[in-house]
Amino acid sequence: MPTVTITRLARFSAAHRLHNPAFSDDENRRIFGKCNSPNFHGHNYTIEVTIAGEPDAGTGYVMDFAELDRIVDADCIDQLDHKNLDLDVPWLSGIRSTAENVVVACWARLEPALISQRTRLSHLRLWETENNYVDYDGS
Amino acid sequence: MPTVTITRLARFSAAHRLHNPAFSDDENRRIFGKCNSPNFHGHNYTIEVTIAGEPDAGTGYVMDFAELDRIVDADCIDQLDHKNLDLDVPWLSGIRSTAENVVVACWARLEPALISQRTRLSHLRLWETENNYVDYDGS
Amino acid sequence: MPTVTITRLARFSAAHRLHNPAFSDDENRRIFGKCNSPNFHGHNYTIEVTIAGEPDAGTGYVMDFAELDRIVDADCIDQLDHKNLDLDVPWLSGIRSTAENVVVACWARLEPALISQRTRLSHLRLWETENNYVDYDGS
Amino acid sequence: MPTVTITRLARFSAAHRLHNPAFSDDENRRIFGKCNSPNFHGHNYTIEVTIAGEPDAGTGYVMDFAELDRIVDADCIDQLDHKNLDLDVPWLSGIRSTAENVVVACWARLEPALISQRTRLSHLRLWETENNYVDYDGS
Amino acid sequence: MPTVTITRLARFSAAHRLHNPAFSDDENRRIFGKCNSPNFHGHNYTIEVTIAGEPDAGTGYVMDFAELDRIVDADCIDQLDHKNLDLDVPWLSGIRSTAENVVVACWARLEPALISQRTRLSHLRLWETENNYVDYDGS
Amino acid sequence: MPTVTITRLARFSAAHRLHNPAFSDDENRRIFGKCNSPNFHGHNYTIEVTIAGEPDAGTGYVMDFAELDRIVDADCIDQLDHKNLDLDVPWLSGIRSTAENVVVACWARLEPALISQRTRLSHLRLWETENNYVDYDGS
Repeated sequence: MPTVTITRLARFSAAHRLHNPAFSDDENRRIFGKCNSPNFHGHNYTIEVTIAGEPDAGTGYVMDFAELDRIVDADCIDQLDHKNLDLDVPWLSGIRSTAENVVVACWARLEPALISQRTRLSHLRLWETENNYVDYDGS
Repeated sequence: MPTVTITRLARFSAAHRLHNPAFSDDENRRIFGKCNSPNFHGHNYTIEVTIAGEPDAGTGYVMDFAELDRIVDADCIDQLDHKNLDLDVPWLSGIRSTAENVVVACWARLEPALISQRTRLSHLRLWETENNYVDYDGS
Repeated sequence: MPTVTITRLARFSAAHRLHNPAFSDDENRRIFGKCNSPNFHGHNYTIEVTIAGEPDAGTGYVMDFAELDRIVDADCIDQLDHKNLDLDVPWLSGIRSTAENVVVACWARLEPALISQRTRLSHLRLWETENNYVDYDGS
Repeated sequence: MPTVTITRLARFSAAHRLHNPAFSDDENRRIFGKCNSPNFHGHNYTIEVTIAGEPDAGTGYVMDFAELDRIVDADCIDQLDHKNLDLDVPWLSGIRSTAENVVVACWARLEPALISQRTRLSHLRLWETENNYVDYDGS
Repeated sequence: MPTVTITRLARFSAAHRLHNPAFSDDENRRIFGKCNSPNFHGHNYTIEVTIAGEPDAGTGYVMDFAELDRIVDADCIDQLDHKNLDLDVPWLSGIRSTAENVVVACWARLEPALISQRTRLSHLRLWETENNYVDYDGS
Repeated sequence: MPTVTITRLARFSAAHRLHNPAFSDDENRRIFGKCNSPNFHGHNYTIEVTIAGEPDAGTGYVMDFAELDRIVDADCIDQLDHKNLDLDVPWLSGIRSTAENVVVACWARLEPALISQRTRLSHLRLWETENNYVDYDGS
């Protein structure tokens, strides 16, 4: 049986700021530049969630996109959309809200929710602007 | 001589919140929904700035795009990018930072900066997400 | 007070076929080409719905995008999405389901639903593919 | 010599319906939801066809894009564009026309047509809407 | 009868250089900047061609998109695609190949070719990059 | 520690022509078709530059996007943007300026500039038009 991956795009709009309290104010400004702006800035983020598996003989689905939507919404989007990544999201607290750290944190939440006998989370891509994105595959 | 419009797209990433202190907390939540989220959210905004004029016989330009960039950056983008629209921008203070109000405020700044004997600002379009935008032509 | 337009994009996936029973089969094939294919084809359509009005002093809204969504969904998208434009939609029956005719039919439904003391429908754009769209403003 | 992949995007507009005659009508509706709508719906599909090989020393090509176009058109696009995936395409008959099954069927047709001493088909991506796609690499 | 506009997007890839022989080399460099680079540069251009008319009662078309394609290809795209705008196109010779001048020259060619008892060219938009475009409506 | 890749998109507009002086004029026209047009044509290119590494515990960065921009601009974009790939770029001279050859040449320049104790260049994607791109990972 062939292994196919299916990918769903989901979107959220969030505020954040890059700041490390272990650094001095000068260091924060030098290292994070305009991303250290004190009153936050924000982005329209897009996350691509990729599941690997074999299409079911009866349905032709690796996984129902509607079910994938429900899981991604419940475990990620509902907690990130129209929120402040630094202040409102318990599972992001205490880390720098770079795209790199956010994508790894999303993996930690989505990977157990999406594993089944037939499927597994195989890839995440997170777009922060139309000009940059990060990828993570759990390794 | 033909009249042509030229349009430049510029982008900024900003945080904001919709909240009217004249309303009760309940009213704010009911009216603004998730856009009233207390710790801000944010967007990648795109603004389309349109100038009308006759192409110059010598240069073929209505206006040099590089000069248009400089004016749009100086009068709008530099003050909005990686900022909080509600806290960091004097010319947006005291108003609700809806796309409607932001585009009108940008017009008030750009219109005098872009008028010349040969050209005038003729249109602004502001995208807040890939699914909604507002337009204003000064009238 | 300034007049601003706000625009919302909505999407639907539908099947259709171009065929006029008053024409012979040969004429239908000659006039409509591959769009006359007997068992239907389909598109991901995008409709841009534009409302004109003055931003409200208290909310900063011409109209709440969430309310606009509800009306566009109820009067158009729910009846078109994952449907056959020629067989499933009473208000499109008896006409050729060209983008031109669909956009005029959407106007007839949306215009009365979106008029208020403060706002009016001012423009519709319907994309059939990424390479063609039609516009209608009610005149 | 370096191995480079080249990718060509091709597009087709098609109707389809998800329905398994081995399921009851209720099961079909429950499993496939709005994709089970009886009179078909449709999409603008985009397929990305990726070929791997070493650039030729004389031409600098892994493969001439024009030749790749001709093969992809002849073996896939001409048979899918403006067609009904369930009724008009012999090599898709008897299967559910999910994106997963369509991409595997396209591989079976394109893989032998695109193999040569110098090149091989290495990847297919099929977009069904702007929010979901599937990938297959033949394994 | 309603008046609807239909718009077709067409694309061409071309080289050009901005240079006015009436200016000194220094002036050319100062005025045109990197667009004056001596050995040309190039763009993927997109032109949006808009036709206004009333949908025909029998076909539902303002104009057949396939016929529109043929005219736009014959009168514009075939002469611009994979060409040098300054050296290869007689109807652009002697002018600066700015987007402003190119869109006006395209209008002069397309307007007579697209006029009929039922339709007229109503708008052209020419994209030079994803960040700038020009518009012309013949006035 | 997780390994994440970060990707930055950069753009350049350039002219080029496909032509091999070792071939006859007839062969050049037959092999390269319209890409052999004698006075050059051009494209808006987009390059996606992907870096692999572990996010730094203090900054949350695999690499600062601003520093990545500086390196990509200095070693690639500044030398390609608004230039003729065949005449103006010493490190592309003597080769056919196909997307395949350009991406391999960009790798040769960027790979040493982007290697560090913590990061390495892991992937390049070069778009020539919206319908074709090439990928290279150094192997």
